[in-house]
Amino acid sequence: MPLPPLQTTRYDVADGVATITLHRPERLNAYDATMRAELELLFDEVDRDDAVRAVIVTGAGRAFCAGADLSSGGKTFDYAERQEAAREAMKVGEVYRDGGGTTTLRIYRCLKPVIGAINGAAVGIGVTMQLPMDIRLAARGARFGFVFARRGITPEACSAWFLPRLVGMQTALEWCMTGRLFDAEEAQAAGLVRSVHPPEELLPAARALAGEIAAHSAPVSVALTRQMLWRLSAAPHPMHAHRIDSRAIQSRGRSADAREGVGAFLEKRPAQFPDRVSTDLPPFFPWWDEPPFE
Amino acid sequence: MPLPPLQTTRYDVADGVATITLHRPERLNAYDATMRAELELLFDEVDRDDAVRAVIVTGAGRAFCAGADLSSGGKTFDYAERQEAAREAMKVGEVYRDGGGTTTLRIYRCLKPVIGAINGAAVGIGVTMQLPMDIRLAARGARFGFVFARRGITPEACSAWFLPRLVGMQTALEWCMTGRLFDAEEAQAAGLVRSVHPPEELLPAARALAGEIAAHSAPVSVALTRQMLWRLSAAPHPMHAHRIDSRAIQSRGRSADAREGVGAFLEKRPAQFPDRVSTDLPPFFPWWDEPPFE
Amino acid sequence: MPLPPLQTTRYDVADGVATITLHRPERLNAYDATMRAELELLFDEVDRDDAVRAVIVTGAGRAFCAGADLSSGGKTFDYAERQEAAREAMKVGEVYRDGGGTTTLRIYRCLKPVIGAINGAAVGIGVTMQLPMDIRLAARGARFGFVFARRGITPEACSAWFLPRLVGMQTALEWCMTGRLFDAEEAQAAGLVRSVHPPEELLPAARALAGEIAAHSAPVSVALTRQMLWRLSAAPHPMHAHRIDSRAIQSRGRSADAREGVGAFLEKRPAQFPDRVSTDLPPFFPWWDEPPFE
Repeated sequence: MPLPPLQTTRYDVADGVATITLHRPERLNAYDATMRAELELLFDEVDRDDAVRAVIVTGAGRAFCAGADLSSGGKTFDYAERQEAAREAMKVGEVYRDGGGTTTLRIYRCLKPVIGAINGAAVGIGVTMQLPMDIRLAARGARFGFVFARRGITPEACSAWFLPRLVGMQTALEWCMTGRLFDAEEAQAAGLVRSVHPPEELLPAARALAGEIAAHSAPVSVALTRQMLWRLSAAPHPMHAHRIDSRAIQSRGRSADAREGVGAFLEKRPAQFPDRVSTDLPPFFPWWDEPPFE
Repeated sequence: MPLPPLQTTRYDVADGVATITLHRPERLNAYDATMRAELELLFDEVDRDDAVRAVIVTGAGRAFCAGADLSSGGKTFDYAERQEAAREAMKVGEVYRDGGGTTTLRIYRCLKPVIGAINGAAVGIGVTMQLPMDIRLAARGARFGFVFARRGITPEACSAWFLPRLVGMQTALEWCMTGRLFDAEEAQAAGLVRSVHPPEELLPAARALAGEIAAHSAPVSVALTRQMLWRLSAAPHPMHAHRIDSRAIQSRGRSADAREGVGAFLEKRPAQFPDRVSTDLPPFFPWWDEPPFE
Repeated sequence: MPLPPLQTTRYDVADGVATITLHRPERLNAYDATMRAELELLFDEVDRDDAVRAVIVTGAGRAFCAGADLSSGGKTFDYAERQEAAREAMKVGEVYRDGGGTTTLRIYRCLKPVIGAINGAAVGIGVTMQLPMDIRLAARGARFGFVFARRGITPEACSAWFLPRLVGMQTALEWCMTGRLFDAEEAQAAGLVRSVHPPEELLPAARALAGEIAAHSAPVSVALTRQMLWRLSAAPHPMHAHRIDSRAIQSRGRSADAREGVGAFLEKRPAQFPDRVSTDLPPFFPWWDEPPFE
């Protein structure tokens, strides 16, 4: 099934790596309801397509994403006032779900490694959407800002949950309470981004990292690993991890992938993993009940 | 209502920033039941007074706080033996609540940014009381020590919960199991303090940071942000953050603050936020039931 | 009761510090069912013996531990296929418990400080067994690898819970999804190891750190501190810590250790703590119900 035409994003797959490009360069890739819907569609495609072993998210032009589209001015965040059909679909009882949160929860559920290639300014939802990605690389000159308190609103997109996991409480609080912009070097020192690159070397570096995973790691192992780390690290006791990783080792330990992985290692040759994410996730997966919005 | 006379602390407000000074310099600002009561009183005042946009905590003289007042000698931590009226009020069933913990839980609940300006020695409760503050700055020459195991007691003031959130498990365990003193540079490298300053530049740096928040960030946004980060980061799933930040964005998104914040940004002028913490916190706040001591 | 003969490990105690040496140098100290059983036995001995104030874990020869013994080839992780008696004992319902997880949960429960002295290669269970240790020191030249995805399996030994507590989510995800090897310097920069030493200085440095704890810290305080930090830091609210540390301060505050610890401090002399882990843990310890495997 081909993808429908994309208005605010671009999508391509090469060498086992999908690239999602935020693509409204004339508006600094500002996030709106259309981009929200397209990102959901594209992450579904990433999960569906076994040819995709990792995904890179980047921005077209000079910004990564300048945040929410402010063309509605002071009413931008007044969901009730805007009465968009797209917003109505977000209403649960008396509460509108935050759109950014639906995007970050979708990325959180992704079965493939998600690598952010942060090419330029990343502000508001432009930075909070990065937090559920696994690894972030930044171009020298990129700038970041958790600017919510300066706009009279609050951190969204589950960033209160994600950000302290990446940079610790002190930095998370300072960035969100001051709302100030900061550069890629500060982001790297704090642990938000893993490495900083000259702009022309950013995408090659992201592709090399994605390619390393695609070349050496079993796709089913990576899908399980991703969900195990994000979910089990938040449990109150390591026993919760022991219950799941015992099942995972038992299940994957007798898989064709394990025979190939260990065999290839002992024979000092590259592994060719036969199992596929679409068909070979173990019966106990998913092991969790996704909590409802309420 | 004016504050009652203060015996162990000082309090002043200037330019939207309150400063709480631990003030028993002849005893290196040692913590006792009076200081405990005054800190609770002062944090109530900080939360009550809309003119206070941030609070700095520092110490008078050469120490920040040398820890519990040891003038009772080997019986210092034997609450039952001491039979103080102040201690009796701390008894719940058969257990005396740890006094330091009542202080750190009070700071945890604070509605304004709390900045520690650590001017000198900070030992025992002198360092654990800092952990629920949002940001810590230290003077060159300040020293820190989680000395409990060297005194035959244990970490208190909820530090087992707070410290790993700031410096990770490995450093937290080493500091608490050795009980050794360490300097401001080690505290900075580990993430306990955000920056180290020449002594005479410490308070100006703390005031500049507090002033940045006061000048640019909406007070109601900051109050919500502070509680969202501390509380939602400890939830077992990002959905817990999504439930609350959706309500926060819906509520603040239609506020006068949001209209002003977005409008000022688009007009490239400083924002003047009209909403006040005392009157404009949203109806869903607080969204939690505070757990009892039990 | 003397220890039974050890096949895959060595154990000695000197100056209050036990050393557990993984000892199958001809197989790079590969982990197998015998080593699993011996480690459980030795950690029981560490906890039982009041003369042991801290424990160091290291490896004989050029490796720390090269991971699971792969002599069964591609069937190494197929527990059902191997039908070992030792594995049968690990079956709970239809699930085999992961052996590495039983080791890390045993280390997690230890009452003494656990210091890893990582002398060489540490791969698979060779690195995940380190995570519940309190502090890790590494020899220059040591190498680490969370190689599971490259072998077609998944992270085990509760590492999904432990690793992000030490190095944050971004690094944990990168290491586990790429499965690549990395050196001691990268491990230190990320916070996995606390310090890197020339190989001949590794054990002396580990002994100096263990000796510092043994010399200055009260053993009962250290046992409580270790369990408080690991367990209470994972609670959803600091009140959980306040409940326990209030009991701990009340209980240890009237102990002979506290009288000695405060007295020695005031008299500027070394403390001689009388209380023992085997007999003087407070009545409320353990305060938790250990969760079952299920």
